[in-house]
Amino acid sequence: MKNHLNYTMLCDFYELTMANGYFQTDIAQQICYFDVFFRSVPDEGGFAITAGLEQIVDYIQNLRFDEEDIEFLRSKGCFREEFLDYLRTFRFTGDIWAVPEGTPVFPGEPLLTVRAPAMEAQFIETFVLLTLNHQTLIATKASRIVRSAQGRPVSEFGSRRAQGADAALLGARASYIAGCAGTACTQADQLFGTPAGGTMAHSWIQMFPDEYTAFKTYCALYPTNATLLVDTYNVLKSGVPNAIRAFDEVLKPLGITKCAIRLDSGDLTYLSRKARKLLDEAGWTECRIMASNSLDEYIIRDLLLQGAQLDGFGVGERLITSKSAPVFGGVYKLSAVEDREGHIIPKIKISENAAKITNPSFKKVYRLYDKTDGKAFADLITLHDETVDESQPLELFDPVDTWKRKTFENFTAKELLVPIFQRGKLVYDLPSMEEIRAHCAHELSLQWEEVKRFENPHNYYVDLSQKLWDLKQELLKARR
Amino acid sequence: MKNHLNYTMLCDFYELTMANGYFQTDIAQQICYFDVFFRSVPDEGGFAITAGLEQIVDYIQNLRFDEEDIEFLRSKGCFREEFLDYLRTFRFTGDIWAVPEGTPVFPGEPLLTVRAPAMEAQFIETFVLLTLNHQTLIATKASRIVRSAQGRPVSEFGSRRAQGADAALLGARASYIAGCAGTACTQADQLFGTPAGGTMAHSWIQMFPDEYTAFKTYCALYPTNATLLVDTYNVLKSGVPNAIRAFDEVLKPLGITKCAIRLDSGDLTYLSRKARKLLDEAGWTECRIMASNSLDEYIIRDLLLQGAQLDGFGVGERLITSKSAPVFGGVYKLSAVEDREGHIIPKIKISENAAKITNPSFKKVYRLYDKTDGKAFADLITLHDETVDESQPLELFDPVDTWKRKTFENFTAKELLVPIFQRGKLVYDLPSMEEIRAHCAHELSLQWEEVKRFENPHNYYVDLSQKLWDLKQELLKARR
Repeated sequence: MKNHLNYTMLCDFYELTMANGYFQTDIAQQICYFDVFFRSVPDEGGFAITAGLEQIVDYIQNLRFDEEDIEFLRSKGCFREEFLDYLRTFRFTGDIWAVPEGTPVFPGEPLLTVRAPAMEAQFIETFVLLTLNHQTLIATKASRIVRSAQGRPVSEFGSRRAQGADAALLGARASYIAGCAGTACTQADQLFGTPAGGTMAHSWIQMFPDEYTAFKTYCALYPTNATLLVDTYNVLKSGVPNAIRAFDEVLKPLGITKCAIRLDSGDLTYLSRKARKLLDEAGWTECRIMASNSLDEYIIRDLLLQGAQLDGFGVGERLITSKSAPVFGGVYKLSAVEDREGHIIPKIKISENAAKITNPSFKKVYRLYDKTDGKAFADLITLHDETVDESQPLELFDPVDTWKRKTFENFTAKELLVPIFQRGKLVYDLPSMEEIRAHCAHELSLQWEEVKRFENPHNYYVDLSQKLWDLKQELLKARR
Repeated sequence: MKNHLNYTMLCDFYELTMANGYFQTDIAQQICYFDVFFRSVPDEGGFAITAGLEQIVDYIQNLRFDEEDIEFLRSKGCFREEFLDYLRTFRFTGDIWAVPEGTPVFPGEPLLTVRAPAMEAQFIETFVLLTLNHQTLIATKASRIVRSAQGRPVSEFGSRRAQGADAALLGARASYIAGCAGTACTQADQLFGTPAGGTMAHSWIQMFPDEYTAFKTYCALYPTNATLLVDTYNVLKSGVPNAIRAFDEVLKPLGITKCAIRLDSGDLTYLSRKARKLLDEAGWTECRIMASNSLDEYIIRDLLLQGAQLDGFGVGERLITSKSAPVFGGVYKLSAVEDREGHIIPKIKISENAAKITNPSFKKVYRLYDKTDGKAFADLITLHDETVDESQPLELFDPVDTWKRKTFENFTAKELLVPIFQRGKLVYDLPSMEEIRAHCAHELSLQWEEVKRFENPHNYYVDLSQKLWDLKQELLKARR
């Protein structure tokens, strides 16, 4: 991104009051492990699609307090001078592992793990969470909407209803990762290469003496990219006939057969079928019919089930805000500390609610793929020093109903968390947008259809290794 | 704001394809009027609270394409060189009127009106809408939550669940306008002066050998601002007793009686009542009890109805995303153009849905206050050249059921839209955050309680003057 606001100060104030507290104790330099994970999938879906890592990398690399920041903090009257001095040279010196962007992920598994001195590990919480939570939310929603369109292009149209400029820009980015064909947002294209497109608003048509003149002028200007908005006055009586007349008069003499109309109101099934008939009868069989107007995955699915003759969709507010589920609840939890000899001391956060009990210690996540069909069948969370031996049968068990057991053979295991920072240095080769998008499409193709269902999806297994499960039970017992 | 991304390119791509089209016609310099208005209040509330104007002013003043932008647009292959040349000197040269931030507003009335050459007026649509839509959404939600707390302070805690960094920062700003006491977001305080606060996360407690040591250390560090998070292990058996012990040992010898605990899980009514009893019995009657954990206006109202002993609230994801209604549907519609002699030619956008028909022409909005109690009783939209005579009785009528008429006397009339830009120059003295916040509180106090109800609020009158109503009917007839 170009010159932008430095987000070092975008932290919850308590990160600073705590850091100021740690600073005066042994804890400051104590190595801690924090995991980011989530507990439930938005819209009761089967999985989420990760996004936002590139912006986290940018944030970590630009983490520094300038004199203006220090002065502001001093004015709050609660920080020691030694601490403010220390902030001058504050940098992130730790390690980060993360699941690459565009990967389907499941509740309970770490999406990102931080290992760093307490001061640093605690400090980055807010920005890491807000970035992963936002972009993962939008990528997850976009994936649903793209799948509902069954191969027809979906464009992200929501900037004007986004929750701020970042939400527009990064929402377009996340949508593209998850398979949207493009965006209406020019700056998202400039920053991220998410192809921007769009043709006309109703005001274009209103600026001309009549609809026909507006259409004809547009076709003359953009003969190879004429998508005419046909619902300003009356779709079937005025919009489509005027579009056909403009196509006939401007495009036909040029030998152009590709064009489009856009429906933005009314009964899209009925209007698209009638419009298709009018266009076909006039010989414009290659004219595509696009639809917009408060669409989401359910409406698109229903339109197609009802036989709507639609070739593409523009999706606005319900995508860019994930309107039906506008919060992704990723959390940032302490999982371990190291003692002075570097031994890992696992930590657990208990809760009356079993689902809220954290998985302790420094961990890995393996995704297991069946060699016979290539499909992912389970994720296995292990302790950091465990490896999965692909040559041996692997017994998985339900971490709650432990009598539910199943043994798998003939599988491959892939680690989901990859190193991003080591001792403060970026060690990850950031993939391009096209690579992330391709990775997303590929990984999705390895998930069962049952997991991708919108309602009541198959509950994908996220299991714990025996060693991790035993450790968790031991810590729970010790707490009681 | 400090150095930030220039948002000139944050436009829907069609603004540029249309502008490129206008550029080659007479329309380019035709003066147009556009109104921003909305059709329904989020959460079925009675009104919205405007916010975001300051960021729109900033955007308009910084509107310029740099060479990198021009080069990017050239690469799209659809813009004429003359148009790209023109963009080099593109500035906003028109007029803008807007309702000041922090004002209660109602569906159908203009919140912002633009008068500018078509090229410019059309171009600013996306950013103006996204900014007003986002901040008005959050201010409206914050106002509801603040009112539910009945005078108890509400802090905005939602950064980590915000839809991007802007949503966190500007959401904190909008929340403060609407009456929140502060925010957890440090950078929002730095940028906007919305007081940042916060004390500790669960991880603070987990970093120490035990809860008591964590509390005692914190009290020693921040004796005058000790808010202890008491739910890491068990609120009543461990958290509150340990807090009391830390208060007794650290604060009491210092003569400090003000402190607080925070509950972040469990049954907040039950726990707060029990905790109150324990604190009072231990002599900590001035210890406040704060609550957080997925709160919103309904939960806070219910907690207080149930007799929860709570003195303040931290509200996160349900405020920062307006979770129950995450979209504010402001639209930007052409209302008139001027002919070469400067005569206004009204424009109307018709629709099968009567509520979607726009109010034509260049307009004013008057808010009418009853002199006997000072309360606002109606808004009246008039043509731009009408004035309301306070010395004469005023007959208002329902714009749909026109037989519903009522005559008012003894009132004052205030124009809601004030000049912001004139011929591209800022003519508005931007109020401080404190002034905006005070304006919001004052204007809210002039609204009837019936309008502020969460469910089934009184339908505040937004009426049209006879002249505007007549013009609208005339245009509708002409279209049929």
